Amino acid sequence: MAEYIEGKRPVIEALRTHVPMKCILMADNVKKDSLVNDILRKAKNLDVPVKTISKKKLDELSERESHQGVMAETKPFEYVNVTAILEAAAKCAEENEGRALIVMLDHITDAGNLGAIARSAESVGAAGLIIPNKRAARVTAATYKSSAGAISHMPVSQVANLTSCIERLKEEGFWVCAASEHAQDYIWDANLKGKIVLVMGNEGEGVSRLVLENCDFGVKLPQVGAISSLNVAQASTACMYEWLRQNRAAGEAPLHTSR
Amino acid sequence: MAEYIEGKRPVIEALRTHVPMKCILMADNVKKDSLVNDILRKAKNLDVPVKTISKKKLDELSERESHQGVMAETKPFEYVNVTAILEAAAKCAEENEGRALIVMLDHITDAGNLGAIARSAESVGAAGLIIPNKRAARVTAATYKSSAGAISHMPVSQVANLTSCIERLKEEGFWVCAASEHAQDYIWDANLKGKIVLVMGNEGEGVSRLVLENCDFGVKLPQVGAISSLNVAQASTACMYEWLRQNRAAGEAPLHTSR
Repeated sequence: MAEYIEGKRPVIEALRTHVPMKCILMADNVKKDSLVNDILRKAKNLDVPVKTISKKKLDELSERESHQGVMAETKPFEYVNVTAILEAAAKCAEENEGRALIVMLDHITDAGNLGAIARSAESVGAAGLIIPNKRAARVTAATYKSSAGAISHMPVSQVANLTSCIERLKEEGFWVCAASEHAQDYIWDANLKGKIVLVMGNEGEGVSRLVLENCDFGVKLPQVGAISSLNVAQASTACMYEWLRQNRAAGEAPLHTSR
Repeated sequence: MAEYIEGKRPVIEALRTHVPMKCILMADNVKKDSLVNDILRKAKNLDVPVKTISKKKLDELSERESHQGVMAETKPFEYVNVTAILEAAAKCAEENEGRALIVMLDHITDAGNLGAIARSAESVGAAGLIIPNKRAARVTAATYKSSAGAISHMPVSQVANLTSCIERLKEEGFWVCAASEHAQDYIWDANLKGKIVLVMGNEGEGVSRLVLENCDFGVKLPQVGAISSLNVAQASTACMYEWLRQNRAAGEAPLHTSR
């Protein structure tokens, strides 16, 4: 299904963060102000076609009634299947003495958090992200923004069932590690060497019971302040860098990736 | 100088994230819709006075002309002096075998990043943040939001001169460590034990040359993906958790804080 971005500034932001677009729709009566000129210039640079349509037609397409005469129709994000992520992980493992990371998100609901996690995952050389295909954030314009474009470089797979996916990843030789505040061990005391799936829970509930039961082990990140406020994207960053730390020899460069 | 938050939703968000407020100003002709009722309810719960004034007076106070009949006058954030942060650090060191962390931000410009860093700093038990008093983000409503309230628990000091502050911190027995992509050593190979000042650079330029020259040593965080996109808040989180990791014995609980 087509997804639309409404309004001058949101469309400029989407062009700036390289959200893939089919076209930009402009009302025939739109005032050619500096924002509109900026949109036309950016669209031209990025080869995004601009179509002029009636304001009435734009009103019909609009869901939020906030189009200000400008909307962008985005291209759907190209998800990959789990096999593609396993292949990327196999390649990473081959080049790095058996080390690879896949990140699984157990019903993260905020598209911005998804982007922030993709950004860190890209930085540590993760092979891909696995997310549920229902009741969870999908890749949207907000994801592009918060990932600073990193989402374009990160394979993402949507699966129907996280627990059966975990079984498959185990069969492929991965150790599945859940980050959970209820875990007994600090992440620093766990063995994250080799092929690891890091499972992060959602913003409110953390990793769900059923998923947790299917993981090989759990790890926690200490929070020693007066309030426990670390969000899932920050916790993911700390956990992923700990994986990277454990997976290289002292003084040596970390992982090589050829993506 | 008084700072104002304009518009119904921004005022609701500020009430939700506990931005300290002097009062809420409401135009005498404002429509009592569900948002306004929400504001009145939240203000009552938080003991924030609501004053009714003329729309003309509100227009005069408004900078952005986006008040929608509602503005909030915030209380200025209560910065502390460096001595207070040193005292908090001394207390932390006393309770934790000489370990303490102070985070210095070299001209971070985004108030949201400042909040995200405060959030992680609070999670690892940092003693405080030191920021410049000019050309740098201050604590604003955006900081409260991105810190999820953690900024209320984190001492922040504004200083006129970062390099002379670094000298003072060194005299107090701190090792000053700059996170810089130009550093030779990975953070994992550096010794972060004891009393550490972690200096993070700004979004565009990183740590400035003069500040870098005054630091005891530099550390870098590897970025092994196709693009180098980690933002300063994420990099800070990874660095701060590495400080926490190094500053506790294997298997033991991390730092105790009594804040």
